[in-house]
Order: sequence, then structure tokens, then C-alpha cells
Amino acid sequence: MANRIEGVLSPVITPFRKDLSPDADRFVKHCRWLMRSGCSGLAVFGTNSEANSMSVEEKLELLEALVKGGVPAAALMPGTGHCALSDSVKMTREAVRLGCGGVLMLPPFYYKGVSDEGLYRNFAEVIERVGDDRLRLYLYHIPPVSSVGISLELIDRLLTKYPGIVAGAKDSSGDWANTKAMCERFKERNFDVFPGSEVFLLDGLRAGGKGCITATGNVNPGPIDNVYRNWRGPDADKLQAGITATRKIVQKVPMIPALKAITAHFGNDPAWKTVRPPLVELSAEHEKQVITELKTAGFSMPGL
Amino acid sequence: MANRIEGVLSPVITPFRKDLSPDADRFVKHCRWLMRSGCSGLAVFGTNSEANSMSVEEKLELLEALVKGGVPAAALMPGTGHCALSDSVKMTREAVRLGCGGVLMLPPFYYKGVSDEGLYRNFAEVIERVGDDRLRLYLYHIPPVSSVGISLELIDRLLTKYPGIVAGAKDSSGDWANTKAMCERFKERNFDVFPGSEVFLLDGLRAGGKGCITATGNVNPGPIDNVYRNWRGPDADKLQAGITATRKIVQKVPMIPALKAITAHFGNDPAWKTVRPPLVELSAEHEKQVITELKTAGFSMPGL
Repeated sequence: MANRIEGVLSPVITPFRKDLSPDADRFVKHCRWLMRSGCSGLAVFGTNSEANSMSVEEKLELLEALVKGGVPAAALMPGTGHCALSDSVKMTREAVRLGCGGVLMLPPFYYKGVSDEGLYRNFAEVIERVGDDRLRLYLYHIPPVSSVGISLELIDRLLTKYPGIVAGAKDSSGDWANTKAMCERFKERNFDVFPGSEVFLLDGLRAGGKGCITATGNVNPGPIDNVYRNWRGPDADKLQAGITATRKIVQKVPMIPALKAITAHFGNDPAWKTVRPPLVELSAEHEKQVITELKTAGFSMPGL
Repeated sequence: MANRIEGVLSPVITPFRKDLSPDADRFVKHCRWLMRSGCSGLAVFGTNSEANSMSVEEKLELLEALVKGGVPAAALMPGTGHCALSDSVKMTREAVRLGCGGVLMLPPFYYKGVSDEGLYRNFAEVIERVGDDRLRLYLYHIPPVSSVGISLELIDRLLTKYPGIVAGAKDSSGDWANTKAMCERFKERNFDVFPGSEVFLLDGLRAGGKGCITATGNVNPGPIDNVYRNWRGPDADKLQAGITATRKIVQKVPMIPALKAITAHFGNDPAWKTVRPPLVELSAEHEKQVITELKTAGFSMPGL
């Protein structure tokens, strides 16, 4: 069995052309920059990637372009969870076929208030239909966006039935108590917990977490990775304070268009600003604010 | 220009085989029963259809089977709104190509708290990319499930830009004040409002609405159509009270599996009970309750 992905993962933003089609060349270039700038893995097709604004076919083309473009498949943890069981199965199967190190799976998120039994059946059906021991499934808990969460009881049941396959979770609840409970409850069960923000990176590592999967990893991968590599060192809290401060500047404005505007600015590539509906680009005022505050704080994106 | 669909539309439940694949033969059979039992149109691929639990390809196969199976395309108002712009465009284009009388379009529903500007761009992009004057687009407002609503201001803007194409809305807010406001504000603008429950059928017609698109239309189409056909008559309120009473029995238990269990029971076809995850079938207790109460009330599904 291959080593599991640990460390800092970026839910990679997706570049679109003016006609809103995905831009594979720009995507591969950004992914390569992330991998040499501190990311140990790429959670492509996450919330910050506007993944649900793309069809399965569009995402599979991007994924194949990445692997052909030399990004190691073992470092990839693509989002493969959809509302439609058939879509989740198709995309997960392709991810495994391409050798991805894992998949990060949303629950089906159209119906609200669904039962754990229904969610269990969804994940179990995907696992059974993919039917491949190489699958490493990470559960994606992001109730503030999906409105459908993944309970500790559901994780327990899935881990009991599919140990080794069910490999961990990204917790984007923003609720540290939940992340901590996830780490503690499953720490003897080969279950890797990634907080969904670097704000919880150090606390997460101290509680047994394996890194973080964070929006800001798109623009600030080096300093975040520095916390990961030095978390047992004497400067850990100070390093954590630094990345938390940067995060706080970015999250004052709408996050996804902000990440794109920052990449556009520091990479001198305005095409990055394009988003797909229903998102809209950052207002000029917000753009000016976030860029100015980042510059004042000494932020940079070296090598971009 | 063809006449627009008016009257009672059913958001048709979708039959699945034991392996959870869509069962086109059973689907066509049920649709034909609905059309001869009181429905003037079929809003296939709605919330009650488990539409978002199916891939675009699975839905297109069912839609083609319906048209080949003799259901008039002009009576069809398939749901074609997805989170992914590309999916919405693809499915809307196919619906127009097949001659569907309209499409019922959800907003993209993954991101929450999105702006009207972003939603406007989504619908405008679909309309522009489909680029066909035959398109009749009905907006699907169902905030209790989608968590993303369609404001009156957004409707106004879309109607101003695309008169004739933007043809109406289904209001499943469950908020009569909103349905009434929708009817009143757009009554001179060729905009057809359908309440999302027959509970509001008579009130809706009196306010200028054009019928209803209702879950219970799957099992009780005749009596609901009877209110529609006699809404100006002296017995209208009494007829309305009858269909409201039936609705109230059904909605005491989870609606979608209930509709399937009722169809299975009264059609003597247990295969209908199957749902796709994340939904689960009705519990034995709930099934017994709803069937018993319906029988006591004299409910039947003649000709099924």
C-alpha cells in the first residue's frame, strides 16, 4: 500500500477562459507551482475549485491533463462526491484508475435533513461499485456550504465496514470541538483528519491530525507548510500566528474570487479573475482592500 | 408559438430497478397513466423525481424514452437546472431539441448566500448558450430544499431581458405571501405562476396562477385536476378541501418514499418502493400509516 498523503493540501482554484471553459494549461501550471511551493498534495475539485460548477466530463479532462502534465497522481485527492450516485461512482472510478492518492467525497447535498442511513448507503454504494482496494476515501464534512454533514457515528460505521478504504476526513465545519472529537475518537483506527483551515493546523497536529486542506493553501503554501514541518519546534506558535494573520486578511472578503484575484495580481495574470456563475468576481473595492492589506503584511507568492 | 402548459403538473417519481438503475419502461407507463388521469403536463426530473440523484445521461435516456413512448413532448417540463452551468446547458438544449413545452430550472444550489447577480448570470448564460426561441424557461423557487431562492427582483430582471423565453415559475416556498406577490407583480408580463403544492391551487388560480406542480399529483391527479377544471364553480372550495385533506395524509410521512410506497401499493407493484441514496424507503410503520389513512379516506388510483 502506498503511503498516505499528509501535510498541506490545496483545494486548487480552477482557471476559466473568457468563455468560461476550464483552462487546463493554466491549471497544470498552477498545480505545479503549488507542488514546488509547499503543498504535499492537491485536493483538486473542492469547494474553492468551483468543482460543482463543472460537469464530470470537464473535471475528468482537467484531471487527466494534470497527470499528463507531470503532477504525481499519488499526491492528488480530487473531489469526487456529487448529488448523483452515478456521477460519484464514475468520477471515483476514474480517480482510482489514474492512481490518485485519495478522493475527497462530499455527501449528496440536494436533499436536506437526510438520515445517516441514507448517507451510509451512498458512500457504501460508491465503494462497492468502484470495487478497488486502492481506493482511499476521505469524507468531506462542510456543513456551512453543503448543509449536509457527516456525523461521527456515520464515520464509525463506514470505518468498521471499510477499514483501510475509508482513510480520513476533511473537517470544514469551522468547529474545532468537532475536529478534536474526530481526531480523538478515531486515532487508533488509521483515520487521517485534516482541518479545513490552516487556522486549526497546529491545534490539529497536536491532536493527532495529519495536516490541513485549506483554501489559502492556493496562495500561501510555503508559510503554511513551514508550520507543518516545524510544528514540534519552539517557534510553532509564532509561525501559526503568522499564517492565521494572512488567512484573516483573505477571509474578510469573499474567499473564492479573492484567491483568484490574489493569484491574478501576484502572478501578473488577470485571466485568473474569471469565475463561473453563480459566483461573481471580487468587487474593485474588495480587490484593492485585500491586495493592499496583503502587501502591507509583506505577503508574496515567490516563483509564481 | 405553441400554447403554454397550464393545469396540473406532476413532478414524476422515478422508478429504479433493484440495482438502482432507472427503469425507463416503468417510468413511461406511469407517465402515460398520469397523462390520462388528469395531468396536463409532466414536470419530470423535479425534487420528487430524485432528479439530482441521477446523472445528466441517465435523465436524457429517460426523456428520450418518454418521447419515443408516445408522451407528447409539448406536455413535458423537465427539470434541467444543475449546479454545473455546463450540465444545465446540455440538458436544456436537449429538452428544446426534443420539443419539450418548457423546462423547470433550479438555480445552482451548492454555494449558499450567492448574489442575485451571480444567479442572473447563470440563467442568462443558459439562455444565451441554448440560443433557441422555442425555449420556455420556468424558474424553480424551492428554498426549503435548495437553500438558494429566486427573488422577485431576479425574476423581474430576467423577464425584462428575455420576455417570452422566461415563461413562469414554480413556487415551492410554501409561503403563500410569496406566491401571491409573484402572481400580482408579473400578471401583465406573460409570466405563469404554479404553486408547488395543490394546497394553494384554488388560491393560486384566483390570484391569476395557471395551475400547480405538485408532488401529490403523482398519486391523486384526478381530484386535483377536478379543482383546476371547476375552480370558478360553486363547489370549488369543497373540492379544494378534499384534495387538501389527501395531501395532509401524505405529507405526515417523508414525501418522496411515501409517493413511491403509495404507487407500489395501489398499483400492486412493489418494485416502485426503491429509492436512491441518500433517500431511504418508508419505514414499515409509516407505510402502514399512510396506506391505512388513505384507504379510510376513500382514496384510490383508478386505472393504475
